[in-house]
Amino acid sequence: MKLHNFCAGPSILPQTVIDQSAKAIIELDHIGLSLLEISHRSNEFVAIIEESIDLVKSLLNVPEGYEVLFLQGGASMQFAMVPMNLLSVNGTAGIVGTGVWTSKAIKDGQCIGKFVEVASSEDKGFTYIPKGFKVDSHLDYLHIATNNTIYGTEWHQIPSFDLPLVADMSSNIFSRPIDVSKFGLIFAGAQKNLGAAGATLVIVKKDLLGKTGRKVPNMLDYTAHIKGQSLYNTPPVFAIYTCLLTLRWLKNLGGLAEMENRNQAKSELLYKEIDRNSLIYGVTEKEDRSRMNVTFRLQDEAMNESLSAFFAQRGIVNIEGHRSVGGFRASLYNALPIESVEVLVEALQSFEQSHQ
Amino acid sequence: MKLHNFCAGPSILPQTVIDQSAKAIIELDHIGLSLLEISHRSNEFVAIIEESIDLVKSLLNVPEGYEVLFLQGGASMQFAMVPMNLLSVNGTAGIVGTGVWTSKAIKDGQCIGKFVEVASSEDKGFTYIPKGFKVDSHLDYLHIATNNTIYGTEWHQIPSFDLPLVADMSSNIFSRPIDVSKFGLIFAGAQKNLGAAGATLVIVKKDLLGKTGRKVPNMLDYTAHIKGQSLYNTPPVFAIYTCLLTLRWLKNLGGLAEMENRNQAKSELLYKEIDRNSLIYGVTEKEDRSRMNVTFRLQDEAMNESLSAFFAQRGIVNIEGHRSVGGFRASLYNALPIESVEVLVEALQSFEQSHQ
Repeated sequence: MKLHNFCAGPSILPQTVIDQSAKAIIELDHIGLSLLEISHRSNEFVAIIEESIDLVKSLLNVPEGYEVLFLQGGASMQFAMVPMNLLSVNGTAGIVGTGVWTSKAIKDGQCIGKFVEVASSEDKGFTYIPKGFKVDSHLDYLHIATNNTIYGTEWHQIPSFDLPLVADMSSNIFSRPIDVSKFGLIFAGAQKNLGAAGATLVIVKKDLLGKTGRKVPNMLDYTAHIKGQSLYNTPPVFAIYTCLLTLRWLKNLGGLAEMENRNQAKSELLYKEIDRNSLIYGVTEKEDRSRMNVTFRLQDEAMNESLSAFFAQRGIVNIEGHRSVGGFRASLYNALPIESVEVLVEALQSFEQSHQ
Repeated sequence: MKLHNFCAGPSILPQTVIDQSAKAIIELDHIGLSLLEISHRSNEFVAIIEESIDLVKSLLNVPEGYEVLFLQGGASMQFAMVPMNLLSVNGTAGIVGTGVWTSKAIKDGQCIGKFVEVASSEDKGFTYIPKGFKVDSHLDYLHIATNNTIYGTEWHQIPSFDLPLVADMSSNIFSRPIDVSKFGLIFAGAQKNLGAAGATLVIVKKDLLGKTGRKVPNMLDYTAHIKGQSLYNTPPVFAIYTCLLTLRWLKNLGGLAEMENRNQAKSELLYKEIDRNSLIYGVTEKEDRSRMNVTFRLQDEAMNESLSAFFAQRGIVNIEGHRSVGGFRASLYNALPIESVEVLVEALQSFEQSHQ
């Protein structure tokens, strides 16, 4: 049975990425060696990382003055690195609380320096994106998470602030065009829209660096990675190669404008069914609904197991909500084909009919 | 032409690891999904990481009271994490200088706290392992690198010290049995003897933790990773899978005693030729010669290019010395078959004959 994989991450990748990365493990580009057994300083790998960086720059239209880095440790490592590199010894960073991931960023950040939560949607279980709040422009930077996988909310408008904006884009980067010039720093774990788990993308405005008065070990210092062109030490070779393949796939299908069209079509199809179907309801504010992670719940939660079994029979897998909130969550990342969403919508309709 | 890959890392892996990891990318164990698109909290991946940890424990005979972790960032990240977790706010750490990697550990460590070099072999270009030095037992710990890839030296005897010993074993872990109880903490980047680049092994004695008086962000805190059983956040799934496959291979061939026999045979064969061949010489003190990285130089370095070309004609690749020292370096990691060493020895003999 064909599986429809709605996993929140690590998540579905384009089939061509899977096929080509498996092939490169057997032998990379007819060089007689596996991708896994070449030096990261070989011509072959330097070409891989350079093309990856160039594709990030061209797909996101990264302006001059920004550096693109491939690092390790996921968004969680950035919760430490960002304040180490951008929060001055006597400064304060701001953060907008939109769920578990911003809470973790605060907690980790407070090991480095001062943090203040300038707004939060915790009052309604993180089911919306805070708006209209004020930000003190004396803060060193403001941290937001542009998409919140657990709750299914997304920032559809990025307000302009009078201070550097740091964005955790782990779960919606490359899903739509963005204006990079609005941000001081963007970071994203690879394992949703970019590639296999193990690589972390960072895009940083260079002139923000070197101003904190802190001594930072090299592996945690963006400056060292910029100087090393993401080869300061041995990088996660395989994970970066999957990023290259995914970026090539994105470019070939028409870039981020086309990707946004597809993601819009997929999420609208599913939200339309959620709003129509009498047995289920959407959890989040409509205007803040995520295109990447669509959350919904049964009116009668006693039917949860029965719906899960109904999905499983149709090859619909990894659609349970995060363990902290329950319910259901369909992650519609870039590589998920609209056919999988159609199968899901049909399943929801059949489930409703079978209960009439 | 079959290639003989003497790369210092990322380096040759067992063929079965390459074949099986490529297969798992296409489909993992008949589950209908690629290894790359499953959740790290799935039963499948939890089984992978648990078996990996169990194999590390059984192969190295890890005593009670130690934790085995799979992290990210390589040895370079450990240069920051070790002092963050083991060096108390007012304490001092000691280190034995045996080359570039211990120098980096000092430099990074000094961003965290106080370091003192208790001995060094820099006076002779790091061509030997310091011995007979004294260590102040009031130091919080002593850091050593058990094998030095660039120079080709290795600690064949680990002295007993009256303080916790921290060992960077990136380039000789799993090459021979070790007595883990002699160490407070062992770390190793995966990309030599353990698996693909992107995973880092840490073995830590639990009762050393939580005593520094420092606030450490979760991703840099061993305690958080112990609590999360190496799943605190999304781990490098693929790299860890290659570690599992390599550890299974090691166990199947007879474990570390058998591995040591093989590594001894390979390195003795090559050192014997180095000592016999009139055109070349070994760089390091004989008693400190590494079994993993065999360094040698031509008596007449004007012949360097000619020897490189001679090697290339025979499929002997990645045998140039590190760019900081020059010369030649044959890395004989676990997965390198003795046949490749035989081809290398024959090439050295032919080269000598062709110059008589």
